[in-house]
This record gives sequence, C-alpha cells and structure tokens, in this order.
Amino acid sequence: MTDSDAAPTPSTSPGHAQVGVTGMAVMGRNLARNFARHGFRVAVHNRTTSKAEAVVREFGHEGDLTLARSLEELVAALERPRRVIVMVAAGPGTDAVIDELVPLLDPGDVVADAGNAHWRDTVRRHDALAEHGIRFAGVGVSGGEVGALEGPSVMPGADADTYAEIGPFLEVVSAHVDDEPCCTLVGPDGAGHFVKMVHNGIEYADMQLIAEGYDLMRRLLGMEPAAAAEVFREWDGTELESYLVGITAEVLAQSDAGTAGPLVDVIRDAAEQKGTGRWTVQSALDLGVPVTGIAEATMARALSGDTARRAAVRDALGDQDPAGPPARVPTDDLRQALYAAKVVSYAQGLDLVRAGSAEQCWDVELAELPRIWRDGCIIRARLLADITEALERHPDAPSLLATPTFARAVTERLPALRRVVGAAVQGGVPVPVLSAVLAYLDALRAERLPAALVQGLRDYFGAHTYERVDRPGSFHTAWAADRTEVEAG
Amino acid sequence: MTDSDAAPTPSTSPGHAQVGVTGMAVMGRNLARNFARHGFRVAVHNRTTSKAEAVVREFGHEGDLTLARSLEELVAALERPRRVIVMVAAGPGTDAVIDELVPLLDPGDVVADAGNAHWRDTVRRHDALAEHGIRFAGVGVSGGEVGALEGPSVMPGADADTYAEIGPFLEVVSAHVDDEPCCTLVGPDGAGHFVKMVHNGIEYADMQLIAEGYDLMRRLLGMEPAAAAEVFREWDGTELESYLVGITAEVLAQSDAGTAGPLVDVIRDAAEQKGTGRWTVQSALDLGVPVTGIAEATMARALSGDTARRAAVRDALGDQDPAGPPARVPTDDLRQALYAAKVVSYAQGLDLVRAGSAEQCWDVELAELPRIWRDGCIIRARLLADITEALERHPDAPSLLATPTFARAVTERLPALRRVVGAAVQGGVPVPVLSAVLAYLDALRAERLPAALVQGLRDYFGAHTYERVDRPGSFHTAWAADRTEVEAG
Repeated sequence: MTDSDAAPTPSTSPGHAQVGVTGMAVMGRNLARNFARHGFRVAVHNRTTSKAEAVVREFGHEGDLTLARSLEELVAALERPRRVIVMVAAGPGTDAVIDELVPLLDPGDVVADAGNAHWRDTVRRHDALAEHGIRFAGVGVSGGEVGALEGPSVMPGADADTYAEIGPFLEVVSAHVDDEPCCTLVGPDGAGHFVKMVHNGIEYADMQLIAEGYDLMRRLLGMEPAAAAEVFREWDGTELESYLVGITAEVLAQSDAGTAGPLVDVIRDAAEQKGTGRWTVQSALDLGVPVTGIAEATMARALSGDTARRAAVRDALGDQDPAGPPARVPTDDLRQALYAAKVVSYAQGLDLVRAGSAEQCWDVELAELPRIWRDGCIIRARLLADITEALERHPDAPSLLATPTFARAVTERLPALRRVVGAAVQGGVPVPVLSAVLAYLDALRAERLPAALVQGLRDYFGAHTYERVDRPGSFHTAWAADRTEVEAG
Repeated sequence: MTDSDAAPTPSTSPGHAQVGVTGMAVMGRNLARNFARHGFRVAVHNRTTSKAEAVVREFGHEGDLTLARSLEELVAALERPRRVIVMVAAGPGTDAVIDELVPLLDPGDVVADAGNAHWRDTVRRHDALAEHGIRFAGVGVSGGEVGALEGPSVMPGADADTYAEIGPFLEVVSAHVDDEPCCTLVGPDGAGHFVKMVHNGIEYADMQLIAEGYDLMRRLLGMEPAAAAEVFREWDGTELESYLVGITAEVLAQSDAGTAGPLVDVIRDAAEQKGTGRWTVQSALDLGVPVTGIAEATMARALSGDTARRAAVRDALGDQDPAGPPARVPTDDLRQALYAAKVVSYAQGLDLVRAGSAEQCWDVELAELPRIWRDGCIIRARLLADITEALERHPDAPSLLATPTFARAVTERLPALRRVVGAAVQGGVPVPVLSAVLAYLDALRAERLPAALVQGLRDYFGAHTYERVDRPGSFHTAWAADRTEVEAG
C-alpha cells in the first residue's frame, strides 16, 4: 500500500477490486475508506480525477484502495459480478452516472445507489436496469460523514439475489450492536430508500422536539443555554438517551469565541432542509397516513427560514406577552413529554413504512428497522431496543402505540405532556410538534370524532354521501328538497 | 326548443353553437344548463350518448341545448374559434378526451378543462396543445352542483387571448356580487387550477375548524347537537357569517328518521377526501410554505378514516379522562378563536398562492381571489370582502396577518384562541387545527426561534454549516476537533 507521501497508485489492475465506489465527496470517500479499512479491495473513481487521486494518496495506507481514472477503468478494475456503488448527488447527477455505467456493465453486475435518492426514482431505476439484466440496489445510509467512515446504519433495498452479492460487504462496514450489523435487507427496489426517507422524517421530528424542549426551558423556566445543556446531559443518562440529546448538550454548552456568549445565541434562527422531510410528508399524504409530528417539524423549518414574513407579522401583531402569567413546569415534565412525543413520532413513521410496504408489496419486516437504527444513524437511541422488542412481540399491532409497552409508556406520560403543552399555550411559546402529538393522541383515543359533521357537510354541499354507524351502505340526505334520507348507489 | 316530453333534438347544425360541453355528469350537465339559461347556444356531448340525450330531453326547454353524438359532431356543431369545455374525471379521463379532440380541432380553437385537474397537469396540457396551435384554459370551478347551475365561483387560468374567447361566457354564468362576476383571469396555464386547489385546501381547514368548535361545545360544554346548531345559526349573523357555518347549523339540527336522534350521531365519523387538500399540502411543501392548518385538517381526515388503528390505540391507551377537570370556555371565546383561526388559514393559503405565482411567473393578483370567492363557492364568507379590501390596500404585505385590519383582528382574538386551545388541551379534546394555528402565530411572533439549535445540531452531525446573526457568511464549528469556528466556502 502507498503511504500518504507516495505518488498516486498506478491505475487499477483488471478484475482485482471487490467493490467500486464512484463519487468521492465526503460520504463516498469515507464509505470507500471504510471498505478498505475492513480489508476489502476497493477501486475509487470521481468525475474530477484529482479528488479520487487525493483519496488514494491520503488514505491508501488504510487498505487496498486503487484509482480508476474513468468509469471504464472502474468497471475494468472489478471482479465479476461487478459491484459499483454510486455515491453522487441525488437526482439528475445519479441518472447521469447510471446512464454512463450501463453500457459498460454486463448482465448480472450490481449497481448500488447509496445516495439520498427519492424511493420512486429508485423503483424506476431498478426497473430500467433490469431490462439490461443489471441488478440494482437502492441503499439508504445514515450516520453522516463519521458514520460512513466508522460504521453507518445501512438500509438496503434490493432483490434477494442482488443483496446476496452486495449485502455481506455492507453488513461488514455497517455499525454493530452486540455483533449484529445495523444493516439488513429491508425489501425490494425502493424499500431501502423509503425507509431511509422515513428515518430522516423521524429525525426532523426528533430535532424539533428537542428544540421545543429547549425553548420551553429558556422562555418558561428562564434557563440559560449552559443550564439547559446540563439538563440535556442529565437526560442522556435516562430513557431519553440518544445521539441527538447528547449532541444537544454539546451544542448548547458551546461558547462563541467572538462574543464570549453562547454559540446558539449567535446562530441565525433559520433552519434549513434538504428535502427528505418534505418527501416523507408528501408520501404520507399519498398513502393517507397522518404523520403530523413530521409534518409540523418540516413546516417549522420552513417558517423559521421565512425571515421577511416573520418580521412583518411580528411588527404587525406585536410581541406583547400573552394575557396570563406564564405557567412553570418542572423539567421532569419536559422529559416525560419529550419521551411520549418521541414515541408518537416513531409510531407515525412506522405507520408510514407499513403503508408504503403494503402499497408497494415490499413485505418490510417492521421490527428490523428500529433494530438497524440502534447504532450508526442520527436517530440512534436507547428507546430503539424497546421498540424492536415490542414490534417483535406484536408484529401485527396496527400501531406502536397499541403495543403494551408503549401504550403504558405513553399513558403514564400523557398528564405531563398535557401540562407542558398547556403551559406553552398559556405562555405563548410555539410547540407545534408537541401540540400536534397531543392532538393526535387525543384524536386516536376519542370514542367519536367530529369527522361525522365533516361528512354531513360534504353530503350537504356536494352530495358526497355518508356511511351510518348502524347499518352498511352509503346514504344521502336530500338537503335541498324534503330532507329525507336515501340509500345511494 | 323542445319541451321535456318531446323527442331528443336532432343532431347539431354545423357552426351553430357557441359553447360545447363534453361530460354530462352532474357538474357538466349543470354548467351546460347554466350556459343555456343565459341564452348561449350550447352543444352537449357525453361518451355514453344517452346521458347527453337525457340532458337535452329534460332541460332543452331551458335554452338552446343541442345534442352531439360524438366528439366529431360536437366540434362540427361549434362556431369558430371553437370553445370546448371538458368536464370529465380528472387525470387519465381528461387526457383521453383531449387526445381525441386534438386532431378534430383547428389552430386557434379553445379547449377549457373545467374539471378538478392538478395544476401541473394543466401546465403540461397547455404546453402540449400549444404545439398544435390549440389554446388551452384550466378552469377551476367551485360551488358544487348547485353552484354549477346557478352561478359558481370560476377561477380560469389561460393566456390573455384565450381568456378573451372564453372568459366573457364564464363571467356571465358565474356568481355575481354587486354586479361583479365571481370570475376573473387568474393567470396563465395552471394558475386557475392552482388557485382552485388552494381554495379547496382552505375549505378543508374551514370545515375542520367548524368540527373542532362543535366538538368543544359537545365535550367541554355538554351541548347537544340541536343546541350547537343554534349557536352556529346565531354565528351566521356575525363576523363568522359564511356558507359553511350556515349549513353546519342545518346539518346539526337535522334529525334521523330511523333513530329519532340527531343525524350527526348516526353518521360514521370517518371523513373522506378526494385529493385537493393533499395536493395543496404537497405543493406547499415543494414551495416551502407552512400551511399547517390545511395540513392538520387533511391529516385529521385521514386519521378519522383509519378505524382499525383508532380502535386498537383506544383499547390500548384507554379513554380515561385526563387528570385535570375540563375547563369550560364561553361560546364567545369559541367564536373568536374560530374567526382568528379562519383568518390564519386564509393567510396560509394566500401565502401559498403567492409562492406558486412567483415560482411559475404567473403574476397572480392576490386581492382578486377573495373577491371572486365572495359568492358561488363553498368558502364564501362575509370575511372575504374584508380580505379583498385589505389586500387591495396592501398588495405587497408579505402576509394577510401583516395588514392592519387582520393584524388587529387576530391580536384582539389571540387571548380567546389561547383560552380555547388551553381548555381543549386540558380537557383531552383534539383540536389539531386550532393548536397548529396558535403555534403558527406564536412562532411568527417570536423574536427568536429555537431553529438556531436545529442549525447547530445539523452542523454538528452533518457539517451543514450555519449563518450568524452578526456577520454574513456560512460557518462551521469543528465539533470533532478543537471546536474552533471556521468560515465555510
């Protein structure tokens, strides 16, 4: 192997490498290094060759990393069936690379897209490549750049024979918990990217919940960021233990060198997004699954970034304190509320996977998802072991909230959640996700919903008909005539 | 003209009719009758000819209605440039009719799709027909079957020269307020269907808000449907005056003949939907506009219809009363809360139109929309005249909430909204839209949002960078290293 001072490795020896990776931005580079560190023979390629050269030069000493100066060289460097991992920008960038690869490959070769593709694109690509006899996998990868290097959570979607070629490699480089890889075949074609999308949607909700908890500490309890950091650090040793809670303590404790105040106070309060939260909610709407926590989290980011509108409305409405004195809640109520809300956002996300799997006939085994999310990914949390167990015991539960463990967990914390939302409402602190989660729970718990009135209104103005609670069929009341009820076609 | 006992009118005389309508389901039939009643010469066609024959036979006495037994006959029956209104099922049904029409038409002819098309389909069809020189309009029509017959609100999207051919006809048959038609050229190609989509989204929010108000009367105030009906009837003489509030009183007052109890109590509480609410939220997510009221209303319908999950979670969680005693709120608080929330859902919908218009370069004049919604459509309301006036005076306001009239209206009612949501939270009554609206207002009013923490977390795990409040640029803290801040490319 070269060391970091040596010249770039000479171009590849044909048929030598086990895995090819094209796309040497940080995620692709780190994934390639991860393969090499585990003893795999890896060929690397980048459209701009110098970036791939740099990877070999800087990290060649970590393992068997060889340079491919073109996709032709990359393909030639691989043993058969070839395994090409594509890690480039989602969308047209991915299509461009695949279009260039296809004529170079042979039937039976495997192309794995490990970027953040929309699952519908993955289904389309899978089917298009199948016409050439080329096997396609859509591989969700979570864990950021550190995860890609040290062991991410991997969510592959592929046919079983395709997974047999690529899966063992992915499992080795993934994160592990108790010697179990955080990687498993999720389902065919788009299933992996669908699950990765939902993972990110849950991540949006999780982060917004943490932000709401922090905002309540700050505005209702008058805590400074450093004090809030202490609370999050303490929570990281409780049922809330998770990567995001842990790094929240780090971020809140961070000082800004310039102002000597808390860093969080000099960061502009406009959250950005890259699209997977949006895709999650859009898919949920298509499938008719209420993922209200994820939806509110996604829209909260959009709202925060709309600074012109915020300023105009703030000026017009005034920011005077609300009428009542702000209620204080103990931080233990916050902890309980956050836990309950986190459970609900997982439940909503898993409902979405269930619905997507049913529509696409993917046969996703739900309990496998929290299992492979236990380490490596951004939403890794102590909670996930319990979710895995609950779903393994009750695979047919129509909601995580209907499993005994989580029904009890949520019921016990419902009073605290109610107190927290009540205090926020009174104190004028926006808690869109906590509020949405509480409304969701209260709606699921309700014996009767006022949706009956909605159906009555729809029948009145549009003759859309309604069903009755006491007998089957569709009915219409002749609202504009004698108001008798008739059974509709 | 034939009377209803006569034989069907003989087939059309070429070049006689001014307007052709294809699709004789209830909306198309009533729109055709509306044209005929206003003295226009109308040719009608339906794929199954007998339905068109029935229209001519039953309603021929209302005006100049002639039968076309095929699309060829329909086209032959029309003066030039021809005006063909398509009123068939949205989606493939519409494409099929258009594909069949195109070879029969000449350059300069006008096709107007008055169905519930997705605005992106309308843009696509506009561009496809332009290649044949055929002019295409996408016409949103609201008002249900009665509106179609007696005067709907009409939201046409078309090029100006296309509107010159078809607009005068549409304006005559539309609803009128003070002699002004509830119809105007909204913008080019997909603009009309986009606006109709948002209209329907607002309708979803409006109906859910009414349902939440009713649920609160029922569950917190112990009112029977008949008593709630009285309150809505009274409200219909206040600032809440609207078509939906009026018919709510009618639906709640209706008895069921079978049980002798309130009809609303025997209607199954599972709300259905046809897709425009979903499209609204999906488009809003693409455009980054937080339409939280519409999103929660759409998802509330989905949740209500998921009876298996509701039953399982209800059984698991139990429906025991929440800890605190339910707070009572005066119905006047409910009235104020509903008004404020209604204003917010209009504001969110108009924000969406503004964003869509900007992205598509449609140049929609926002104040025209509440103007043409004042009558004919489902969301017609007293409020719309005030919204029109506010937007005419402040066309550049970045939100309806930033206009003096509505800033004041909402500020005055914010304490009542807060009391209502607080009581619902305490009492366990789900009010997803009222909660979302309050969180939206409190977020817009906030000087600082915890989105700064979200940005800090994103920078921690993904090096996504953040902006600072005190100087331009993008910054990254080296979290995994010495935690100094660097300016990012």
